[in-house]
Amino acid sequence: MTKVLPVAQLTAEAYPKVKRNPSFKVPTKDDVQYFRSFLDFDEILESSNSEELASFNQDWMKKYRGQSNLVLLPKSTDKIAKIMKYCNDNKLAVVPQGGNTDLVGASVPVFDEIILSLKNMNKIRDFDPVSGTFKCDAGVVMRDAHQFLRENNHIFPLDLPSRNNCQVGGVVSTNAGGLNFVRYGSLHGTVLGLEVVLPNGEIISNINALRKDNTGYDLKQLFIGAEGTIGVITGVSIQAAARPKALNAVLIGIDSFETVQKLFIKAKNELSEVLSAFEFMDRGSIECTIEYMGKPFPLVNSHGFYVLIETSGSNKRHDDEKLEAFLSSALETKLIAEGKMAKDLDEYNLFWTWRKSVPTACNSYGGMYKYDMSLQLKDLYSVSEAVTKRLNDASMIGDAPKPVVKSVGYGHVGDGNIHLNIAVRHFTKELEDLLEPFVYEYIALKKGSISAEHGVGFHKKGHLHYSRSEIELRFMKDIKNHYDPNGILNPYKYV
Amino acid sequence: MTKVLPVAQLTAEAYPKVKRNPSFKVPTKDDVQYFRSFLDFDEILESSNSEELASFNQDWMKKYRGQSNLVLLPKSTDKIAKIMKYCNDNKLAVVPQGGNTDLVGASVPVFDEIILSLKNMNKIRDFDPVSGTFKCDAGVVMRDAHQFLRENNHIFPLDLPSRNNCQVGGVVSTNAGGLNFVRYGSLHGTVLGLEVVLPNGEIISNINALRKDNTGYDLKQLFIGAEGTIGVITGVSIQAAARPKALNAVLIGIDSFETVQKLFIKAKNELSEVLSAFEFMDRGSIECTIEYMGKPFPLVNSHGFYVLIETSGSNKRHDDEKLEAFLSSALETKLIAEGKMAKDLDEYNLFWTWRKSVPTACNSYGGMYKYDMSLQLKDLYSVSEAVTKRLNDASMIGDAPKPVVKSVGYGHVGDGNIHLNIAVRHFTKELEDLLEPFVYEYIALKKGSISAEHGVGFHKKGHLHYSRSEIELRFMKDIKNHYDPNGILNPYKYV
Repeated sequence: MTKVLPVAQLTAEAYPKVKRNPSFKVPTKDDVQYFRSFLDFDEILESSNSEELASFNQDWMKKYRGQSNLVLLPKSTDKIAKIMKYCNDNKLAVVPQGGNTDLVGASVPVFDEIILSLKNMNKIRDFDPVSGTFKCDAGVVMRDAHQFLRENNHIFPLDLPSRNNCQVGGVVSTNAGGLNFVRYGSLHGTVLGLEVVLPNGEIISNINALRKDNTGYDLKQLFIGAEGTIGVITGVSIQAAARPKALNAVLIGIDSFETVQKLFIKAKNELSEVLSAFEFMDRGSIECTIEYMGKPFPLVNSHGFYVLIETSGSNKRHDDEKLEAFLSSALETKLIAEGKMAKDLDEYNLFWTWRKSVPTACNSYGGMYKYDMSLQLKDLYSVSEAVTKRLNDASMIGDAPKPVVKSVGYGHVGDGNIHLNIAVRHFTKELEDLLEPFVYEYIALKKGSISAEHGVGFHKKGHLHYSRSEIELRFMKDIKNHYDPNGILNPYKYV
Repeated sequence: MTKVLPVAQLTAEAYPKVKRNPSFKVPTKDDVQYFRSFLDFDEILESSNSEELASFNQDWMKKYRGQSNLVLLPKSTDKIAKIMKYCNDNKLAVVPQGGNTDLVGASVPVFDEIILSLKNMNKIRDFDPVSGTFKCDAGVVMRDAHQFLRENNHIFPLDLPSRNNCQVGGVVSTNAGGLNFVRYGSLHGTVLGLEVVLPNGEIISNINALRKDNTGYDLKQLFIGAEGTIGVITGVSIQAAARPKALNAVLIGIDSFETVQKLFIKAKNELSEVLSAFEFMDRGSIECTIEYMGKPFPLVNSHGFYVLIETSGSNKRHDDEKLEAFLSSALETKLIAEGKMAKDLDEYNLFWTWRKSVPTACNSYGGMYKYDMSLQLKDLYSVSEAVTKRLNDASMIGDAPKPVVKSVGYGHVGDGNIHLNIAVRHFTKELEDLLEPFVYEYIALKKGSISAEHGVGFHKKGHLHYSRSEIELRFMKDIKNHYDPNGILNPYKYV
């Protein structure tokens, strides 16, 4: 394990209003003793100094840090069930943790919650090449799932920039959207079955469900996107898609977001069934990424917006023809200022590297405030402009010692989803107050969602009313209380 | 309204073990008086003789018939809310009813439940051509939704043989799969938002949700496929797909089901992103349909199985090329015995008419027993063979007076979903006992689902344990009790 030094401020210090729930037991030596009675040596990490467990306590954005002294890394569902039963009986709070790549502080403790890592649940269980049904442990790393399926002529129906670290179970728990949502759709449609350990240690599973199953309420749906608040996902069955024989990409420079929208309609119309991604990045995103990568960007000129369009299909010649015709007519009609089609797979990968590096690039200055929102397409970029203006008006953006390096917007046009990254040198209360609730109020005004795909976690708990009605919130609280009456699973977060 | 004569036996007589729940109030003149206080003349149908309301009391298969004397057909969500509140306060049982095309007795009363028809909730609410978001009242007929979207260069992501009668809300309530599931996937993925009236009259809605929304538990999912047991869906928002510019179909004759499977793998591989349906029909299905349609079948020879493959895409020439290459190589390698590509849209429609007429054809002899199951592809047709053998062994199939005309199997290969239709001259207890629990036990043995897409309803209540575990059943009952504590919504059914 790579040594990770703690750099994030303790969440408990940064958010002093959030108090530890005194009804939770503080884990003791006896508790550890109990866990040792059925866990192997490599299934427990313990330290009297939570800083030594920084890679588990601290989030990827370096924004949140918990103080857990105990990480459990069980290797089987039965062990997880045993852990949960004990924790529930003893009111020990638990944070389930996948690859810990989440962006809303959902996967790290706030205080001394026990970290339940799925890392050691990393086996692929089954694959049926006829139906495309893929079953695996929740802790299988996304990259490994992709590789396995590619070797079996299929693909995992979701991909993410964090694929080298994020886990299948985590992706399902957070209902991640990812880069090919426009083609393969929501996990609510592609997940076929789940195996879940409930807070009381019971195991509920329909992991052997077939493609279609209408025998009653679709219980698994509740756990998709529940961020481990009502159960721990331990196994996933998902519909893999046929592996495309041809992949292609174009990188395009455009001067206004209005044109980005026009281009999207054109792509839906002309690329249709081979369209598998339509991503946009604003100039700031690419500037950060050029600085981070230290390489020249593939396009010659500088533009207000960049679009990456991917096609994938079963016939390279047909796909090329469609994409070339699309690109030529977009250039001829001067809809776009500059465009380049990947000449081979290397260049295709290069284009994607630029897109996938944006979040890491933005996070390389010290930290970042990150917002992830859905809006109607016509309003999509306006939130980025509004935030940049607000930060500029407050003289927050610029060279050091100003706190903000850059405020940028990028995301998935096909899904009406923008990511707003405010790259900062350091986090300050003043900055956070400038951003929140401003961002949420703006989104509420435009009837958007304050979390398109990143979820709620610690960050957006208490803000859901900007996107959800009172009755919806009541229903959600009711679900949480019903399935986790002691509130031990991932506390201080979500609803 | 067309006059429908009652022909089905009363459910209460056919299933004497099912008793009316005495805690439900019998609707009285005062209740009707109350409903009249806020409903218009055309929003109430009342008769002292339930036979006059046969088209609402009796199901499409003529297998179930209730005895309701009261049909409410409100025109607004608020009126539905008012109705539900009153019924809940007064313990009046209610059956929500869409197009009444369901196949498990879910949409008709068993005793004197009030029928809440969504017929008058028939307005399209909104359509956004950029994102493809389509919003409508629950009672919009599927055909009308299709037509509206086609005119707007999109398509509804689901189609059914019953499209002329079934309603959007009913389709969502029953989580229908339909003919293009292999392409557009599950409603759990395509439904974006729902407006639902709860048993107590509260309205819960996220109908304005955008394509992606990760702000808490995805509550709407519970209502998809809940068959109106925990709420009445009154509005639906769904992701429409871009309208394909090219549609094509081939009709194929094949001699064994093993070859059907091989052909499916070949189609997934070669037609991939343009494949939009892969349907199979056995010889018996087509024989029934030839008799019903009174027309010659488009293929020259008789075969054990028939397959209808549809492609849809954005480029006719590309699609044709793919499909022609697919068909030629399948013929050349003698994988298939006979195959015909639709020469134009008329022939394309003709091919589909054959497929879509199978259920009606099977239902034209008097009635039918209908089973709808998921199995692994290798086992898919075996259930049909097992049932036919069982009926033959009992000398049940043949000319009158034998009860069974034919037992046939057809369905969606792409989804591992077979429909088993046992066309009968009349329903008998002896026949039902021969079929059940035999069919369910067979499916349980093969680890399939006893309801792939038709749902549970009255027919499969009490049989769910063949496909679901004890804990799942407990969870389901718990959900029902939690959201409908008085049990007034669609009683005697589901869990």
